[in-house]
Parts: sequence; structure tokens; C-alpha cells
Amino acid sequence: MHPTIAVIGAGQASADEERRATDVGRLLAEAGAVVVCGGLGGVMGAVAEGVAGAGGTCVGLLPGTDRSDGHPALTLALPTGMGEGRNLLVVRAADAVIAIGGGYGTLSEIGFARKLGRTVVGLGTWSVRQEGEDAACHVVAVEDAAEAVLLAMAACS
Amino acid sequence: MHPTIAVIGAGQASADEERRATDVGRLLAEAGAVVVCGGLGGVMGAVAEGVAGAGGTCVGLLPGTDRSDGHPALTLALPTGMGEGRNLLVVRAADAVIAIGGGYGTLSEIGFARKLGRTVVGLGTWSVRQEGEDAACHVVAVEDAAEAVLLAMAACS
Amino acid sequence: MHPTIAVIGAGQASADEERRATDVGRLLAEAGAVVVCGGLGGVMGAVAEGVAGAGGTCVGLLPGTDRSDGHPALTLALPTGMGEGRNLLVVRAADAVIAIGGGYGTLSEIGFARKLGRTVVGLGTWSVRQEGEDAACHVVAVEDAAEAVLLAMAACS
Amino acid sequence: MHPTIAVIGAGQASADEERRATDVGRLLAEAGAVVVCGGLGGVMGAVAEGVAGAGGTCVGLLPGTDRSDGHPALTLALPTGMGEGRNLLVVRAADAVIAIGGGYGTLSEIGFARKLGRTVVGLGTWSVRQEGEDAACHVVAVEDAAEAVLLAMAACS
Repeated sequence: MHPTIAVIGAGQASADEERRATDVGRLLAEAGAVVVCGGLGGVMGAVAEGVAGAGGTCVGLLPGTDRSDGHPALTLALPTGMGEGRNLLVVRAADAVIAIGGGYGTLSEIGFARKLGRTVVGLGTWSVRQEGEDAACHVVAVEDAAEAVLLAMAACS
Repeated sequence: MHPTIAVIGAGQASADEERRATDVGRLLAEAGAVVVCGGLGGVMGAVAEGVAGAGGTCVGLLPGTDRSDGHPALTLALPTGMGEGRNLLVVRAADAVIAIGGGYGTLSEIGFARKLGRTVVGLGTWSVRQEGEDAACHVVAVEDAAEAVLLAMAACS
Repeated sequence: MHPTIAVIGAGQASADEERRATDVGRLLAEAGAVVVCGGLGGVMGAVAEGVAGAGGTCVGLLPGTDRSDGHPALTLALPTGMGEGRNLLVVRAADAVIAIGGGYGTLSEIGFARKLGRTVVGLGTWSVRQEGEDAACHVVAVEDAAEAVLLAMAACS
Repeated sequence: MHPTIAVIGAGQASADEERRATDVGRLLAEAGAVVVCGGLGGVMGAVAEGVAGAGGTCVGLLPGTDRSDGHPALTLALPTGMGEGRNLLVVRAADAVIAIGGGYGTLSEIGFARKLGRTVVGLGTWSVRQEGEDAACHVVAVEDAAEAVLLAMAACS
């Protein structure tokens, strides 16, 4: 089976975050990964567009019950009806995670991903740490879409 | 988006049930539907093989946390880590449901599917009714794979 | 720990079903069981009233996100935000299940309960069977609240 | 209904974290709150002991399927069978959250709690922030069990 990478981030994103998400999606598709995301707009829709443009597969796990809420660029939209609970499913489905920007939902996904032992590569996302720690041991912060994809793919093998 | 049909049934199935499941999978792929199933063996694996043989898309929603538990014929295996809770996800993801044989997990999916207003077409599956009722108002029992696919596809539009 | 019994049934119930549910709740509390239900009205609210009247504990697992949707007679209302997915939680939480009347949600719970190996005692609920089988091997149908409680309590030990 | 407060933290905790959790549990019970936790050991068990010592109610939502895994000091143990997915249920059930120490599961709960708009009061827990932000806008860090309880209770009203 192909490596599966989750790309997580907020439904309301800046133009810069969306551009990065599209780059990440394109590069992941070129690298042969299946992409999983939350299926809505913002970072989620932008990554789906990047994947679609490169002929790849992007699966969206929607919080609601209506498949038509899914972004049109998705290869496949699966309504889960689990609300925010679908965040755990997005992370579970993946071998590694790339976080781009993001709000509290993204923070919950970072926690779940790390709990499940997944590498999280971050592009302008949350910095998390406990007292006396270095945040770098939780999220691998990078500046560049290609580096994020490289590290996430490396974490799958 | 393509119509999405869930095919449900037990992981331990008879040769006859598996043959029917493979036929249903092939016919659904030929009809242009995306197929969703529980991703393991028995009816689930047999439907995935039918879909794959016809070049279609079959997504497996696994109960466990390990993608490699998915049947090799699946286009995509998504580990949910939700145990039997994944049954609800299988039904949610679909516009209509075909049940082939099946145990108690299949019964729970029939209940959920009907609760969500999905048509359930049955091939040798559960008969359910309340006192004074006709079971036919809950599950549409048919004898033939092609008829099952025809009725399920009709229920999507 | 006390035995825990789930009482399941529809949010829209007949006066006779509600009377039975209240009797079942009272008898379960008198027998020392903790009662779990879906937390809304109909059979759920009636069982909560029966439990409360006898000074027992009745926990409601609500489908929505708002605790105030819970029936006022509940000892404790837990909003799950999982929609119909909370049905599985109700069954999981219990050692045995009593079904009173019920719609498709109740049917899904009967399937889950049997999948998990729980005894289901039925008062005017679904009859489920596969071809050539006797429905009595799936749901133990009784006519009387006291008998339902007796059999459910016996199944816990 | 009584205010409901979730107390979250790791199953492996330091003696200091457990002492704080027991204090928090006792103070919450004295303040009239129902307490919800993850039901296992460490911070979860310590808070249950504090609640029990003050005659309060502490509900444990267990990740597994076996009620006997619940800490003996719990008033009520509900096995969810949802694995880490139960973290979302713990937060959903509560009006406000107190985090004590904690690992990645606690981090996921902080994300979910904030996503749902719940106040999170932290005792030696995660510091989370995005670039250019102050971490104090996400988790209200305090040093003292009584202050944590005071702020969490205030957030319920």
C-alpha cells in the first residue's frame, strides 16, 4: 500500500497557508502518497486542489453527515457524522502528519498524532511544550513545503 | 460525485455469500459506484475483489488501528481504531446499503442505515420486524446480485 | 461495582411502553443496578423517572452536545456529541440490555449488544432472525417488567 | 443540574501531580461539582480519590471495554471502547476543564476543549501557542489547586 499522509489545518486560512497547502498536496501526490484531510475548505481544500492537480488521491473525512459538504477537489468524501471526533480518524488513517497553520482542531490532532506515535511536521503551526522542554521534540517545524513532504515521507518508512 | 454504496456482511461467510459479494462488487463498479465496506475478509474481502476486478474503487473502514489488516484488494484502507463503532461510519459514508448474509455487526448496520433513512437491500440477510408488521418494510429482500445493485443504485438518485 | 443495565427504546413511545419503562426503572433501582439510557424522552425519560422514584442512579448518554437536553429525572446527563454513535456507548456501558418497543436506533443497539455478547431482554421490541432460525435465540422476549429485570440481572452475574 | 468539571492528566504522574489532583478532586466535590475523568490511574485515579473522600460524584470514561479497568474510587465507570477517542467524550461532558501535568492525550483534550469553547485551567501542564502569541490566551496557568477550582467553577456560570 502507498504511504498515507494527513494534512491538517484550519478551514479559515490565510492566502499564504493555502498556497503552502497546495504545494504540499502537489508534492505528496508526486511522491506517491495518498493524502487524507478533513475535507472542508481553507487548508483542507487547498491541499485537495494540489493533490488533484497532480493526479493523486485525496480523501476527505467530513465532520458532518452530508457528502456534498466535501470540497469538490477531493477524490473521495466520507461524511463521518462525528463532529470534531473525525479529527482522530484523520490522524489514525495516516502514517505521518503535516500541520499547516491551524486552530484548536489542529491542536487536538497534533496531540492525537503524537499520542499514536506519528511524526508531526509543522509549517507555521502550534508550538507546544511543557516546562523546561524544547518544543522541537513534539512538532518538527520547517519553513518549506518540500522539506515538510520530505520529512513526512521519510517518517513513513 | 459518484454514488457511494456500502456492502455489509460478516467476516466469516459461506462460499455462496462470498460469490454473491464478488458479483455485487463487480456490478457496482460497472455501474460507476464507489463501494465502502468494513475492509476485512469474508463478504468484505469478496466485494473488494469484485470491485478491483472491474477497475473500480473500494474503500475499507477497518475496526482496528493497523492499515495492514485491510484486505489486499481494497483501493484504500482506513484504520479507524473505533472497533465496532466503525459500523456506523460505513453506513454514514454511503447513499444506500446492500447486506449479504451477516452476523450481529451487520444487524447493527441495518439498524443504523434505516435510522439514517438509507435503503437496505438484502441478499440472504436478517429479517427484522415488530409485532404485526411485515419485514419487507425494513429490508428489501432480493435473490439476485444484479437486482440488489439495481435497487441500491436506484435508491441513490 | 454495581451491575449496570442499559434500557433502550424510542424517544417517541406509547403510554403503555412508558409505563413499562417506568416499572423497569423502579425495579432495577430496587435490585441495586445502575441504569444507563440514551437520556432523552419517551422510554428513556420514563425509565429515568422510575429509577429516580426509587432513589437509584440513572445515567443518560445524550446524542447531542448540550447537557440541558437531558431528561430532568436523570441522575447524570453526559452529552456525547456523537449523534447516533452514542447508541454503541449505551450498550458498551452495560452488562445486559432491556429493550422496550423501539425504532431503528433500538435495532442498531440490539445488534451491537448481541455483537458484544450482551443478553438482550425484550418487551414488545424487534423480532430479528435469519432464514431457518428462531428469533428467540437473539432477543429474549418477555411480557412483564419484573421478568425482564429478573432475566437482565441474572445475565450480569 | 450541577456544574460538571473534567480533570485531565496522564495515567503516569508524579507524586506532586497526584497530590494536586487529589486536592482538586476534594475541592470540586466540596464546591458541588460533578467530576468527569478518564477513569484510569495517575492523575485520573488521584482525582477520583479526592472526590470520593469528600463524598462527591466522579465518573470515569474508560478507553477500553472492561468496566473493571476503572479506578476503584470512581462513583461510576463507563467503558467506551473508543480508545483515545474517549478523550473527546471527557471534554464534551464538562462545562470547564482542569489539566494537571499530562502527556499527548492531555494535549489532545486541551485542543478539543478549546475548540468547544471550554475554559482550560492548567496546573503544570502544556503551554501552547502560535507564533507571536501569548500562551496565556489558550490555557490559564495557575499554581494552586484552590485557584484552579475557583477559576473552573467560575467558568461554568
